[in-house]
Amino acid sequence: MKTYRIGICGGSGYTGIELLKWLTRHPAFEVVFVTSESQAGKTIGSCEPYLFAYTDMVYITLDDATQRTDIDLVFLALPHEASAKVTPQFLAAGIKVVDLSAAYRIKNQQVFEKAYGFTHPSFPLTQEAVYGLPELSRESICQARLVANPGCYPTSILLPLIPLFKAGLIQNSTIIADSKSGFSGRGRKTDIPGLFSEMNENFYAYSVGNHRHHPEIVQELEATNFSPVSLIFTPHIMPIDRGMLSTIYVPFDTDPTQDIYDLWTKTYKDSPFVRIFRGKAPQIKWVQNTNEIHMSFTYLPSQKMGIILSSIDNLVKGASGQAIQNANLMVGLPDTLGLITQKGV
Amino acid sequence: MKTYRIGICGGSGYTGIELLKWLTRHPAFEVVFVTSESQAGKTIGSCEPYLFAYTDMVYITLDDATQRTDIDLVFLALPHEASAKVTPQFLAAGIKVVDLSAAYRIKNQQVFEKAYGFTHPSFPLTQEAVYGLPELSRESICQARLVANPGCYPTSILLPLIPLFKAGLIQNSTIIADSKSGFSGRGRKTDIPGLFSEMNENFYAYSVGNHRHHPEIVQELEATNFSPVSLIFTPHIMPIDRGMLSTIYVPFDTDPTQDIYDLWTKTYKDSPFVRIFRGKAPQIKWVQNTNEIHMSFTYLPSQKMGIILSSIDNLVKGASGQAIQNANLMVGLPDTLGLITQKGV
Amino acid sequence: MKTYRIGICGGSGYTGIELLKWLTRHPAFEVVFVTSESQAGKTIGSCEPYLFAYTDMVYITLDDATQRTDIDLVFLALPHEASAKVTPQFLAAGIKVVDLSAAYRIKNQQVFEKAYGFTHPSFPLTQEAVYGLPELSRESICQARLVANPGCYPTSILLPLIPLFKAGLIQNSTIIADSKSGFSGRGRKTDIPGLFSEMNENFYAYSVGNHRHHPEIVQELEATNFSPVSLIFTPHIMPIDRGMLSTIYVPFDTDPTQDIYDLWTKTYKDSPFVRIFRGKAPQIKWVQNTNEIHMSFTYLPSQKMGIILSSIDNLVKGASGQAIQNANLMVGLPDTLGLITQKGV
Amino acid sequence: MKTYRIGICGGSGYTGIELLKWLTRHPAFEVVFVTSESQAGKTIGSCEPYLFAYTDMVYITLDDATQRTDIDLVFLALPHEASAKVTPQFLAAGIKVVDLSAAYRIKNQQVFEKAYGFTHPSFPLTQEAVYGLPELSRESICQARLVANPGCYPTSILLPLIPLFKAGLIQNSTIIADSKSGFSGRGRKTDIPGLFSEMNENFYAYSVGNHRHHPEIVQELEATNFSPVSLIFTPHIMPIDRGMLSTIYVPFDTDPTQDIYDLWTKTYKDSPFVRIFRGKAPQIKWVQNTNEIHMSFTYLPSQKMGIILSSIDNLVKGASGQAIQNANLMVGLPDTLGLITQKGV
Repeated sequence: MKTYRIGICGGSGYTGIELLKWLTRHPAFEVVFVTSESQAGKTIGSCEPYLFAYTDMVYITLDDATQRTDIDLVFLALPHEASAKVTPQFLAAGIKVVDLSAAYRIKNQQVFEKAYGFTHPSFPLTQEAVYGLPELSRESICQARLVANPGCYPTSILLPLIPLFKAGLIQNSTIIADSKSGFSGRGRKTDIPGLFSEMNENFYAYSVGNHRHHPEIVQELEATNFSPVSLIFTPHIMPIDRGMLSTIYVPFDTDPTQDIYDLWTKTYKDSPFVRIFRGKAPQIKWVQNTNEIHMSFTYLPSQKMGIILSSIDNLVKGASGQAIQNANLMVGLPDTLGLITQKGV
Repeated sequence: MKTYRIGICGGSGYTGIELLKWLTRHPAFEVVFVTSESQAGKTIGSCEPYLFAYTDMVYITLDDATQRTDIDLVFLALPHEASAKVTPQFLAAGIKVVDLSAAYRIKNQQVFEKAYGFTHPSFPLTQEAVYGLPELSRESICQARLVANPGCYPTSILLPLIPLFKAGLIQNSTIIADSKSGFSGRGRKTDIPGLFSEMNENFYAYSVGNHRHHPEIVQELEATNFSPVSLIFTPHIMPIDRGMLSTIYVPFDTDPTQDIYDLWTKTYKDSPFVRIFRGKAPQIKWVQNTNEIHMSFTYLPSQKMGIILSSIDNLVKGASGQAIQNANLMVGLPDTLGLITQKGV
Repeated sequence: MKTYRIGICGGSGYTGIELLKWLTRHPAFEVVFVTSESQAGKTIGSCEPYLFAYTDMVYITLDDATQRTDIDLVFLALPHEASAKVTPQFLAAGIKVVDLSAAYRIKNQQVFEKAYGFTHPSFPLTQEAVYGLPELSRESICQARLVANPGCYPTSILLPLIPLFKAGLIQNSTIIADSKSGFSGRGRKTDIPGLFSEMNENFYAYSVGNHRHHPEIVQELEATNFSPVSLIFTPHIMPIDRGMLSTIYVPFDTDPTQDIYDLWTKTYKDSPFVRIFRGKAPQIKWVQNTNEIHMSFTYLPSQKMGIILSSIDNLVKGASGQAIQNANLMVGLPDTLGLITQKGV
Repeated sequence: MKTYRIGICGGSGYTGIELLKWLTRHPAFEVVFVTSESQAGKTIGSCEPYLFAYTDMVYITLDDATQRTDIDLVFLALPHEASAKVTPQFLAAGIKVVDLSAAYRIKNQQVFEKAYGFTHPSFPLTQEAVYGLPELSRESICQARLVANPGCYPTSILLPLIPLFKAGLIQNSTIIADSKSGFSGRGRKTDIPGLFSEMNENFYAYSVGNHRHHPEIVQELEATNFSPVSLIFTPHIMPIDRGMLSTIYVPFDTDPTQDIYDLWTKTYKDSPFVRIFRGKAPQIKWVQNTNEIHMSFTYLPSQKMGIILSSIDNLVKGASGQAIQNANLMVGLPDTLGLITQKGV
């Protein structure tokens, strides 16, 4: 099997570390450099002693990384603004880019800059960037130089909903996504709310009505049928390492259960990471450390409401696993390579 | 201060134990017996060694308890069917009853028996029972012989909603309560899903569309304006000891924020356990081990949707604390007695 | 009951907050100011919204606090160096001081400065300071102007061991204390190891062979019989909010079980916070949120080794509860005032 | 690569499930049946919906399993007594056995029966059984028909200690192993102490002085130099899913640090699962979900005491991972096959 040379920019945050973990068992990807601004010059082993495959590799700076032309593909696990700055440099050097930040996810510049609070230095590239949900955009990803890897919340909400929107099953009504995330989703930043003693035994909603993932979800839903979508998205944070559950409320005048299961089954028949549950609610523990998404549907006839439950690991299918899945397609490999954790599936 | 003699039926479950903990510092209540079918004959100290105030007290059986006439009030922390059986006996002996089970919460016998799965042996008493939300039904509770102590989920949903319904602020539309409970809410039953190794690092929805607390919530909301209420209630279980957060979605055509805060402030101005948050989302850690409820409101004008967040400790305001609050009123004491955990508030 | 006016220096760390929580229900202590360098000028309510008894109190600076002469007693929940600096100022103003830092715990200046890394600005006061274990030094504490409140680890180790040393029961041999602490013991500092995502599901030993509490424990043990003590102390950190368990290995040539239980019973017969377990190992859950210490002893005849298990809440008996207990004695109140959490005990 | 046919007896407990998870990515082992007495006749998918590789496989009974002759090797993740009963049947059919129970670990029948409380039906087989620590007994395991897979506590204690005993480095003195285990180590039994609400935020010692793993550890240490070993072993239980840390105290008159690191390095130079830490204490999070053991050594000259820290995942290196490692050797494969989770190491 041909080996592809891989760079990782941002190797001391949780998504960067998760990339490193999964790539150690990827048969066709070889990590040739890892950047970290805070740890540059140190070995990975001295910082993250459990990453034994990289014990002696030395973190380089992002500046040095942008001089490298000896790689085929780079993963950017960087702050949004840093991604927006270096992406054109890598592309110019003929290097494919999977960007785990939000820099190229939002197609409307005004919406982007309002949500992310900085002037985008390379916004036109957004039009070229492919929003990377491999189960739904396989062809475009295969052709892409630049993939905008979706956010964790959007992944958990879009994969169950898009087939329904595409099929015209969802009426013009308000959808509510009440989502709950594991704590690693907030990254490795050091502040008081991030402390163990603050979060342990705790639970709360945050960014009510104004989370940055809201425009991303709406954009992708609206792209399916070119008509406005009314979405309420309420994120909550849970005292667990990893995992995410979205409870999604969608009004339906008549029972759509059979149609929905048919659509899901058909859409995802070749997608081994999508598991469809009937008569059993997904549990976060069932997807931890996998690249899977589990989904179920229940209809409440009295209230004419459908409830979708969907569950992913926010660090895997919600970030680094999906990034590898996209990278596989971009270099011409099967998307599941290095990501299957159970034999024969 | 006069001392009231108290019995506790069901003293080896979590709500019974929570009653015992709080009553040790209650200045006017003296626990004179505690029942436990599984531990009858043993000392409390040998079973729950941290309950030092009761070290040498011996658990008696429920049968023996019903022979006792030397108490003023009994707390029933029993299975629903056991409560329904013994309540008439205590009442006949002139003993006031606070029932923490659901036995007397539902006014419609058919609805009750469908939800709880047994033929109610003393259903007519339900008509006399007062649904015990002290902040809203103080007068009736003061007169009551029998108080049906509300469920935890209903408490977290009704306290913020009832003032809005009473004021006619809520239109005829579907309300969604997406609730998350600490694990103690499921009681002390021993089965596989109850194990630490199953629940730790886990999170999931359960009883989607058919939880027993649904009819209880609907009944109490409908009682405020005698018109049907459409409610969707989705409970989830969290890997924490205690605490509950309800995220409640209520449609409003125009921004009701000021009205809601005015209503809450006015309704709860004499209720020290109700804390109203503005511009800050309640966190479960802030109510643990207190009898408080914290609530906030946010309006999303684009989606014409209001979001209420409310937070309680499921074992205190959601069960045993509220039970003591009810008992205080029933014997003529201030409802906060023994329950204030911060001076001067 | 006379009311004493209380100041709290360092009210935004975990021990300061724990003091505030307990003092809200103390019948004789009134908090008149609270300092916080980082939050000075803000209300306590805006920073810690669950501290409702102090909602509108404004944090002042430590500098301002040292100008105040209107208090009877001050609790210092400050960094060691800050305590060492301000203590003389409070004492000079006739204010009693309970110092929760380590500033005045170590009687040997060289040992102190090696362990804590700064030149002590007021070391002579250490000779006057009373090491505050109320169960063992009641008389001296009653007379003291300055009490050095013991560390959490030392409290859990000294209370079971000192009676044995005093009675000459322990031979000249090495004692091993293998201790495990809840995470709040490390304070509220924001760094990577403090993050929820680093500590959750984790456990490790730290400061092996060189923890600052080692000289404190040795000093207090040696003070009992004026002969050298060989102690090994290994602290570990646990992924729980609060609690501490010390597993203490003490060699004995013959079975001392009866002697030890007799000594403990006699020494602590008037100490309601000390609970002695026989045939049952203490659990951390049994002491959380109490000012108690639980202890047990087991002898292994084949290895001629005794094993003491002792358990406290590191924030209560290991810090703020014990500080209040000391303050009670210093102003002439019963040491249990405001600290009993179960009636009649 | 040749494929070996594998049976799993006891597929609904935690070690059985862990075997199933790891075997899905093992390139040479094919699971052909799984037993479960409680779930016989049901599909694995209906019981453990996350085990997607086995969705449609139906649990069979142990009785049926013992009739099967179409497998090369069987893993027994059964209660001790059940293992002792069926092992001779599998061996008689020419099937290799890796027994994860303790049935064949103890060479002295009296010691065994005292510790495990039943009359062993096939004790003579114990003499043939190889105690399966692959890093130390590779040759014997390669020849074995029956491997007694070590307990989790013993694995964490023996791997660091045996090289020291073999080299004669350890004097005739008492060794203390203070061990802390993740909760999955107690298995999937349903009782009150196993409930989430009992264990969460808790920590305690258990079986002080009489844990069943004590004779197992002593036997294996004594086997290294044929002289008695004095060991104290104190297990504790932690509120985490998986992981184990042993803090081991070994007296040394002079500093053995260099010798110990030399011995460890030499003994384990071909053992990729053994990681030796110097100047850094192992953390449980670093071994979770791996088959690794991490170990470090610190010498305290004042107390003439050495402290070994060793860390494993109790379900992997402490049970199912090590079982697969043994099985690999028994059929002639490299012991790391299917167990390496990081590339190139």
